[in-house]
Formats: sequence, structure tokens, C-alpha cells
Amino acid sequence: MIIVFKPGIPRKKESAVLKEIRKLGYTPHVMRGVARTVVGAIGDELTHANLETLTAQFPDAVESVMPIQKRFKLVSREAHPANSTVRVREHVLGGKRFHVMAGPCSVESEKQLLTTAKAVKAAGATILRGGAFKPRTSPYEFQGLGEKGLKLLDKARRETGLAVITELLSENHAGMVAEYTDIIQIGARNSQNFQLLIAAAKTGKPILLKRGLSMKIEEWLLAGEYVLANENPNLLFCERGIRTFETYTRNTLDLAAIPIVKHESHCPVVIDPSQGAGRADLVATMCKGAVAMGADALLVEVHPNPVEAWSDGAQQLSLEAFAKLMKDLKPFIAAVGRE
Amino acid sequence: MIIVFKPGIPRKKESAVLKEIRKLGYTPHVMRGVARTVVGAIGDELTHANLETLTAQFPDAVESVMPIQKRFKLVSREAHPANSTVRVREHVLGGKRFHVMAGPCSVESEKQLLTTAKAVKAAGATILRGGAFKPRTSPYEFQGLGEKGLKLLDKARRETGLAVITELLSENHAGMVAEYTDIIQIGARNSQNFQLLIAAAKTGKPILLKRGLSMKIEEWLLAGEYVLANENPNLLFCERGIRTFETYTRNTLDLAAIPIVKHESHCPVVIDPSQGAGRADLVATMCKGAVAMGADALLVEVHPNPVEAWSDGAQQLSLEAFAKLMKDLKPFIAAVGRE
Amino acid sequence: MIIVFKPGIPRKKESAVLKEIRKLGYTPHVMRGVARTVVGAIGDELTHANLETLTAQFPDAVESVMPIQKRFKLVSREAHPANSTVRVREHVLGGKRFHVMAGPCSVESEKQLLTTAKAVKAAGATILRGGAFKPRTSPYEFQGLGEKGLKLLDKARRETGLAVITELLSENHAGMVAEYTDIIQIGARNSQNFQLLIAAAKTGKPILLKRGLSMKIEEWLLAGEYVLANENPNLLFCERGIRTFETYTRNTLDLAAIPIVKHESHCPVVIDPSQGAGRADLVATMCKGAVAMGADALLVEVHPNPVEAWSDGAQQLSLEAFAKLMKDLKPFIAAVGRE
Amino acid sequence: MIIVFKPGIPRKKESAVLKEIRKLGYTPHVMRGVARTVVGAIGDELTHANLETLTAQFPDAVESVMPIQKRFKLVSREAHPANSTVRVREHVLGGKRFHVMAGPCSVESEKQLLTTAKAVKAAGATILRGGAFKPRTSPYEFQGLGEKGLKLLDKARRETGLAVITELLSENHAGMVAEYTDIIQIGARNSQNFQLLIAAAKTGKPILLKRGLSMKIEEWLLAGEYVLANENPNLLFCERGIRTFETYTRNTLDLAAIPIVKHESHCPVVIDPSQGAGRADLVATMCKGAVAMGADALLVEVHPNPVEAWSDGAQQLSLEAFAKLMKDLKPFIAAVGRE
Repeated sequence: MIIVFKPGIPRKKESAVLKEIRKLGYTPHVMRGVARTVVGAIGDELTHANLETLTAQFPDAVESVMPIQKRFKLVSREAHPANSTVRVREHVLGGKRFHVMAGPCSVESEKQLLTTAKAVKAAGATILRGGAFKPRTSPYEFQGLGEKGLKLLDKARRETGLAVITELLSENHAGMVAEYTDIIQIGARNSQNFQLLIAAAKTGKPILLKRGLSMKIEEWLLAGEYVLANENPNLLFCERGIRTFETYTRNTLDLAAIPIVKHESHCPVVIDPSQGAGRADLVATMCKGAVAMGADALLVEVHPNPVEAWSDGAQQLSLEAFAKLMKDLKPFIAAVGRE
Repeated sequence: MIIVFKPGIPRKKESAVLKEIRKLGYTPHVMRGVARTVVGAIGDELTHANLETLTAQFPDAVESVMPIQKRFKLVSREAHPANSTVRVREHVLGGKRFHVMAGPCSVESEKQLLTTAKAVKAAGATILRGGAFKPRTSPYEFQGLGEKGLKLLDKARRETGLAVITELLSENHAGMVAEYTDIIQIGARNSQNFQLLIAAAKTGKPILLKRGLSMKIEEWLLAGEYVLANENPNLLFCERGIRTFETYTRNTLDLAAIPIVKHESHCPVVIDPSQGAGRADLVATMCKGAVAMGADALLVEVHPNPVEAWSDGAQQLSLEAFAKLMKDLKPFIAAVGRE
Repeated sequence: MIIVFKPGIPRKKESAVLKEIRKLGYTPHVMRGVARTVVGAIGDELTHANLETLTAQFPDAVESVMPIQKRFKLVSREAHPANSTVRVREHVLGGKRFHVMAGPCSVESEKQLLTTAKAVKAAGATILRGGAFKPRTSPYEFQGLGEKGLKLLDKARRETGLAVITELLSENHAGMVAEYTDIIQIGARNSQNFQLLIAAAKTGKPILLKRGLSMKIEEWLLAGEYVLANENPNLLFCERGIRTFETYTRNTLDLAAIPIVKHESHCPVVIDPSQGAGRADLVATMCKGAVAMGADALLVEVHPNPVEAWSDGAQQLSLEAFAKLMKDLKPFIAAVGRE
Repeated sequence: MIIVFKPGIPRKKESAVLKEIRKLGYTPHVMRGVARTVVGAIGDELTHANLETLTAQFPDAVESVMPIQKRFKLVSREAHPANSTVRVREHVLGGKRFHVMAGPCSVESEKQLLTTAKAVKAAGATILRGGAFKPRTSPYEFQGLGEKGLKLLDKARRETGLAVITELLSENHAGMVAEYTDIIQIGARNSQNFQLLIAAAKTGKPILLKRGLSMKIEEWLLAGEYVLANENPNLLFCERGIRTFETYTRNTLDLAAIPIVKHESHCPVVIDPSQGAGRADLVATMCKGAVAMGADALLVEVHPNPVEAWSDGAQQLSLEAFAKLMKDLKPFIAAVGRE
């Protein structure tokens, strides 16, 4: 930690601060600069107390305290310099092959799901998405088919050979959801629901962790740390848009998160442009940007009849639009040297 | 819902849109304006499909769709024009008397908790706060004493007569936490963890619902709707700061939320300036603003020795600072006509 | 405009509102819905009073007022359905050919500028950027060489044949800057400095209008409207990052602005990834995303020795890094069907 | 500056960085910590190069660079530990007396202005506000009466004895505006229009500097530094709301800016709740909060007939509402120990 003193502090006051720093387990190292005196407090920040409280204890003497170490370990590039890959059935995410996960926002019926599954498979998707448990802003909106939806996903998996991803909403459903799915999705609203993250991690299934609406990248990496620290190395980070002042789109898709997460971490990065845009007409363009910027996979909402979807119809692609998108993406996938 | 057509749409296209509106259960009402043709779709928006999908189905014809109705019902002023009050043991929140909830961020030890409890009671607080289960950004930070912490809160309650508020983190702990506490707190990170909200509501205990870091007020009211819709009328809204670009404070305390929530809803409003500021030196000033703007209660972090706190030391008041604050607030409480 | 009444308003009150609507020049059209009564006020919103004041005048009766018309006209796709192009010397921006504008953040010396100009030209850039007047957050930072810088840009232009873009900071310099530059840049901090926009527009030179840090896209289009309304049709919109809570990058580059502005407007779109990232190592990746998402041009900061740059060194590419970037962009430019 | 090395850097690489630090005029001071090696670069940051470019020059070796010094000087508390006051005619802002500036958003006519001026004076205001030059988001909105408006303000000043504040939009009008006004207002959109700030400062008139919509407090203080560095010590900071994701209010009034600016700077702080709220019904409550939190003055929009105002009608108070507000504020002004 770096402690910055206010100017003109009496030496006696300085000594009191230095004493407290030592008491909290650090070795202080004083540097007298031109405009400020600065203290380097040497010690492992992850195992010692946070010195930021010094600003409260010595408000007249301490101007600011700055941590030096990164707080995440297992998800960091330092811990694992090569890219890590996540195996999902016969597929490898984070490797040379680019993957597309596609399917409806909510599982609504056997017909809706199977029609979609067959169409997205034919278009080149390898993983089927579909919500059985839906977190809805209002208690009066459709909350998902629950276990019945999971069973339909399982059926679609058996009939098409697609792998399956679905969202987990409750610690109590972790076992049940893990039985039917190949990847467990943690949604943006639950991205810092650490109990849920731990329960999901403990199933051993790959976890796709969406970024919360107002999550700094550091906080997102730390939430991922909860997965790896619970002995599950199969983690995918998924950017789906952050909340900003702009109202034209539902959220602002932060595509810079791709190179940043790849710089800080070894885990694969997935982009969900459907949630980010909230508008089907922008989804295709955002997919191209995501591919070009190095994403490992896409998560796209597709529905046989978006206007009659039970949730989020405005952002779901039709089967035809999805097939066209998959064709249009090819030159971009080639341009980044992937398959 | 209001549907705005793009200019120059052929009548045949219009008819197709109007047909779809009827199919989804609304009666369309066409108004031909100077620059745009607009359709009023008459029907109950809470029980019919959301017409926003029309922009996706008819991208060439439909420019935008605007909902008219508010999506929250039970928490709204319309449902309950008078202020509602929440009874907590012998106290009434939302009434004439102004309340202060105070105590440490985390329960650390019997001595720490009892010392604080006695001091805040002596200074005028009526409710003791203290975290037994702590949601922490990093898995390597102190996660709370758990049930042992709850027992200490219960002990402090018996020894001082203060009521108790503590945070619930897991659906599976709802019963246990309800046994020891008078108010269940739902934290900002879990403000849209609807499973947790339902589990908390079903205990019948009063719920203090913190606003999420990036929650619009409408979403916050809708999250509160989950509590009332689960037959628990005892809801308190608690503003604790939203996430903005400003980095001087940890979050930006949105004090305008007080008059807004009071305008839209009948539920009491609590302000937590400690989380909002992240700095003890700003807490007292923010408390004065909160009182002046009509808050019903404050939630303040107090610690006998902030610099050695196991969490969030920089924002906790010392016992002396809290006693001074309680004295300083008096003229402001009088100025708003409260006790 | 759409006026939404509160529920249960007496007819007499309704009549008073309708009378006021008529007085302000609109024809009211009443629709009685299930939960709300709504009024369509028919009339041209651009030439009549804004009815939003009705919420203030009739707080008990009027719940909300929603405008229907878009407020921008000349920059809109409706006004000009085809893409517009901007001619800069022998180049056409917004056409089939993709353009790159490159050069130093600040013009520092003849040697620095000419070295850069030759290098970026050799790498394929067609337009030279360079700041002669620099808006600096602090009065103690380098403010640019002023007219001397403009003369150096002119010299570089003559020696290399590159076109030139530079920023205008003061109305009083509009004539002088127009003499030396081919495109006038309006920076993010001045994006709603309407006096400056008007002065720039009146020079007749093409205008590159950066998006303000907290500008909604609608406001940006309206600022562009100031240019076209002052009889200058040569407008380029330039996205350079918006301000969000994320601190890893200096700003959040909103690449979705590309398809959105192209949907709403006919004007070309330029992306400035250097300002958006604030970090050279992210610039190349962001450029790829921008190309893939349909930008018409890039604006990239390049410096022969970034570490000794007089401003914004951390985000400037070296000459070698820029040459590599230009090569790496080729497959992406081909993938969007451009040259 | 503090330079943090990446872990495991070879000594040779370290030496190269240290050499560069020395070359840029700092004395490096190496501290070998547990997880990171950190360098304190000793030297005056305000007069030496910014070392942040080291991350770009040595991307493999340098993880981050953190400045230590504050960048503002003349506006800081360190430069002037006591509160500074600003004299406006016979009034002293920033002293014991609390001041209210009130008047219409735009000057529309002699009758409108004089009616308002007399009413706000009778209610206790000491300064008359009114816009003669109006910055409008759209070029099709009313842009102000210009010099005619200034003359009306001057007339109102002579008839009522109120001091006058009005906004300056163009460098070229600085002299003209200064002739008619007692305080020059710099609006939020021009808060980093440094040419305008300098021109305003040079008139010698007191400057009220509004905070930009997305301005960090540090940037606001630095913009204020432009005023003091141009030898005008009469500076008032005015908070009027920042841009956030919340849409219920037009902007989010950041009342915490009051104690923060008072902590960092000696200049008086004014609150403009009208722009912050965008809704008259919230203005009164926000005023109470502003008083309680230590503001030195309020800037309130008042109009004899808000619904017919030519700009921003929804947020202007009627004369009656203003008179009531002034009465309601009294106990809060007394509670903070002011007059």
C-alpha cells in the first residue's frame, strides 16, 4: 500500500501513523518528495488489513491510501499465463474454434424449443441456450417453466446433439439444473450473489458468469475468483452490456472488455449482444464487432416468432435472421484466424 | 401502449400492424398527426403482451412503442394513498418519530458489539445494525461470523432493549436469520435476487430493501413489489448510493430518491450514508441532508475502533462521532416537524 | 405529444388541461384506456410549445407527457435516405473506401510532425491529424503551439500530400484554422458549445464533431443539426468514448453508436479509439471492432516517441505499431466489403 | 509519482525504466515489496512530464503509474485554509448570510422579468437570475433575447436593487455581458470551454462555474483553477446535477459535492436544484437538503406563469411556490447557524 501524507504534518503525527502501519503488519518505507511525503507499506495486501482506514483514523495527517496489489489471483494471467480452455461435451471453448450459443430467451414449449434447436444447429451453432428459470424485474411477468423447461432442454439436447446452457437462479436448484445442463449461466442480476456462485461452482459444471450492470471489470474478475476458489476451473466471462446514461439501447455493450479481460485473465470471453442491444436490428452488427475484437463465443437470442415471445421479444432474432448472421460472420471469423 | 409509426407508411402495412395489435388483445385507436401517425392501444398492459416487439416484427413501419401504465401496483401511492408505517417491536417507522439504526458493519466479537450497542442506545438510536453474513467482493475477505454473529446480536438486543437489523444472504438462512432479527436487510448486490426477496418476505419480518448500485427507481419499486406480492406489507426502501463516474466518493448518494419514492410509494424511506460516502468525514453532513429531505430513518455504521474494523473501516463512525452526530441532528429533525 | 392523465381525475380538471392544450396550439384527441386516460395532442412539436410544462401546471391531473417527434431534421435519414459523403481534397469519406486519419495528439515540432506524417502516409493513412490548440483539463498543462502548429500542419500537408484535420477551440480562430486545415475538429468538451459549432460551420469546411463525454446520441445528432442548419452539409460524427463508472479504461468506447447513428442519420461515422481507450495496447483491437461494425474512418494518435509526447503519451501508437495496425486491419476492411 | 512493476521483471529491464524516470527529471526510489516492486519517483509532478507514458513504453515491465500530487493549486484549501468570500455589490457570498438567487430561466419580456424580480425580492432573494443568451440542445429552440435581455436585467436591477446573474455563452460577448451583470454564469455545457472561462475571468466579475454533466469533482476544481490562474479570485462553484442512468429526474443532484468541495477548496458553493430535478415539485425538497448540507446559496428558477415559459417550464417555480419555499427554508437556515 502507498500512504500519502498531507503537507506540513508534524513529525510526531507521522510517527503515530507509522506506528499504526507497523501494528497492522506492514513495514513502512518513507519517501520525502517535493510536495508530499509518501510511505510505502511493505507486506502482502491480501493477507493483511486494508490500510484505507488510516484516512479515517488520521484525517488530519493522511490524505489518501492506494493499494498496489491486484486482489484477484486464480483468474489472473499471472497465475496461468496461457489461455485456459473450457471443455463442454465434445467442444472446446477458448480454443481455435469460434462457438455460437443460440436459442430462445425463455423455453416456452416443446415445439418452440425443438424448432429453434434444429434451426440454430443447421445454421452452425453448437450450444443451445434457453431460460427455464427467468429473473424478471416485475413479479407479474412470466417466470419460466422451471423443471419442465429443463426437461425440454434435455430433450432438445438428445434430439439435436447440441450442448445446453441455462440460467441458475436459486442455490436450491443447483443440483437439479446441473443434471440437465452442460453450462450453468449466472445472470447479471446475480453476478455478486456469492452464495449462488459458490453453489454453482460446486456442481463442477462449467460456469458462464455474466457481468453485472454496474460491475467494474475488477469486481467481475473477483466474482469469477469465487468460482475458481471453489475448485471449479471451468469459467467463462460473458459481457452483456453495462448501464450508462444512454437510452437508445437498453445497455451499453462494453466490447473493450474483451481485450481487457484477455489481458488480465486466462479465461475465455463470451459476448451476449442481445441483452446489450435490446434491439434485434443491432445484434448482427455487434456480433461482427465481438468476433473482430477477439471474443471466443457468442450468446445470441433466437426465437421462431419473436413477436409472440413470452419475454424480451424485441431483442430476439428470427430463425432466418440468425441463419443469415451465421453466414455473414464467416469472413470476420476467418479474419481473426479462427474456424 | 402508444405505437408511433414511421412517416410515409402505406396503409396496407398499417393494417397489418393494427391486426397484430388486436391479436395481442388491445383495441387500437389511430391518431393522424402532423408529422407522425400514432396508435393508442387500449387494454390493460399488466395482463397483456408487451407490444414493444412490434418494433422488431415491423422494423420498416413501427418507430417506437411507449408503455403508459406504471408496472408496480401494491407499493404505489395509488394503491395506498396514506403513508404506510412499519412496526418494529415497540417502534413505528414511517410515523412522526424519526429513527436511527446504528452499529458496526460486521459483528466481530461480543465486546465490540455490546460496547457499540450500549453507546448507540445512549446516544438515541433505537435499532442496532450489525452484519453476521457479509457479502464481500473478494472471496479472500472476512465473510462474517454467521450464526454466531446472529446470537451476539440477539444477546445485545436482550441486554439493551434495542431492536435488531441484519442482512440475509442466502434463501437457506431465511428461517434462521428471522429467528434472531427484527428487520431483515436485503443488500444492494441482492436487490434483484428475487428468490431471496421472496424467501425473506415469507418470514413475515419487516424487510429493508437497499437500492442496487445501478437500479432505476422504477426497478427498485418493482423489487419491493416482490415483497408485498408475497403478502408481507412491512417494507422499507433504503437508498445507499448509486454507481456513477465520480470517484471521490465510493458511490453517489441519490438523496432525491427520498421525495421521489415518497411521491410514488407509501412505504417509509431510510438513508444509509455510510455506504454512500465510503468516508466517515462525509457521513454527518449527509445525515443532515437526509433528515431535511424527509427520510424516515437513518442507517449508520458505528464502530468502537474504526481503524481496526474487519470490514469497511474507512466509513464507520467512532462512538464519539456518532454521539455528536445525534446531537447535531436535533435541530434538523425539529425543522421537519418530527421527534 | 402524448399526455397521460392520473387515474380518477374529475372531468372538470380534464377540461382545464384540454383547454390549455388547445391554447398552446395543439388539437387534443382523448383516448379512455383501461387504467389511464391518454390524450394525443396533434400539432407540429417543432413549431409549438413543449407540453411538458403541463406536469408542472397540473400536478394533480397530469402524470406524464411524452414527445412523439424526433427533434433533429436535417441530419436524419428521413431527410436524406442515402448515405451522404464528405469530400476532403481528393478523398471521399463515407463512400466505398475506408479512411484512416493519423498523427500526433499535439503538434510539437517540425521534425516530430514530418516524421510522423511520412510514416503514416507510407502505412496507408490519407489524413494527418495533429493538435495546434489543445484543450487541457489543467491550466498548467501544455496548451499547444497555436498558429505555429497550424503552419507546421500546412507544411506537412504540402510535403506529403496528406489532407489535414485539427481542432478548433475558439470562435475567434475559426477563420485562421480554416485557412490551414481540410477538416475542422470540434472536441468532446466543446460538443455543445453551440457558438463554436456555428462559427466552424460557417467556414464551409467539413466538420468532425466528437461526441461529448455524457452526450446522449439524440443530443449529439442535435448538435450536428447546428452544423447543417448553418448551411454546411459536410458533417462527420466521431465517437471517442463516453464516461461510465468503469475505470480500467479512461472512457467506454460505445461502438454501438456506429450502427445507431447510421440508422438515424445519413452522415459518415468516424471512430477515435485512442481517446476511448487511453491505452495504446487496446487501440489496435478497438480499431478492428470499429471496422467490423461499419465505421467509415478511424482517427488514431501516432507519435514517433510516445513516452516523450507532450500530451496523452499513454495512448499514442509508435510508428511501428501503427504500420502493423494498418496491415492487420486489411482482412477486416475486406470483410465489410470496403477498400 | 508511484510506478508499480509487474512481477518477475529482470533487473536489466528495471534499470531501463529507472533510467527513463531519471531522464524525465525525477529521482527514483525503489521499494521491494512482497508481491510487487514499487518505485517512488520524487519530483514536482506539476512541472515535470507525466510518467503515465511509461506503461506504453515498457508494457512488459510497468503495470501502473499513480500520481500523488493534486493537480489544482489556487482553488485548494492548502492555498487558502480559510473560506473565501465573494463580494457582489453590497452582498457577501460564502459568509454567515445565506443567499438565494432567483428568477426566470429565460428573460422573455419586461413585464415577465419585472414581475418576477419584484416578487422574488419581496420573498427574500438578493440576486436576480435570468438568461439572455440561452444554450439550447436544438437549433430550433428559443435562443434568448441577447443584448435586449441584458438591458432588461439591468433595468430590473435598477428598479429593485437586486444584484444580477446571467450566463455568458461566447468569448466575444464577455465585455458586453460584464457591463450589465454582477455575476457571470458559466453553464454546464461550457464548463470545460477554457477559452470562455479565461475570457470571463478577465472581466474581473465574479464567476459562477456550473459543474459539467459528466465532470469529476477534480476536473471541476481544475476548471475553476483557470479562473483563479487568470487573476480573478471571485469564484463560486455551482452543482446542478450530474448525468447518471436514472431517468426519473433529468439529472442526479450530487449534494455530496457540497462537503467535498468545501473540504478540498475554499470557494463558496451554490446549489441549483431546478436543473438538477427538472421538476418543480422536487425543487423545494432539494433546497432544504442543500441548506442542511452547508451550501452558501441557492439558484432557483422562478416564473410568473411556468406553463407559458419559453424554456424549461417544467422546472420553474411559480411566484407563490417560491414565496412559500423561502418561508419553509427558514428553520433549516437557522439549523445550520446562518441568517
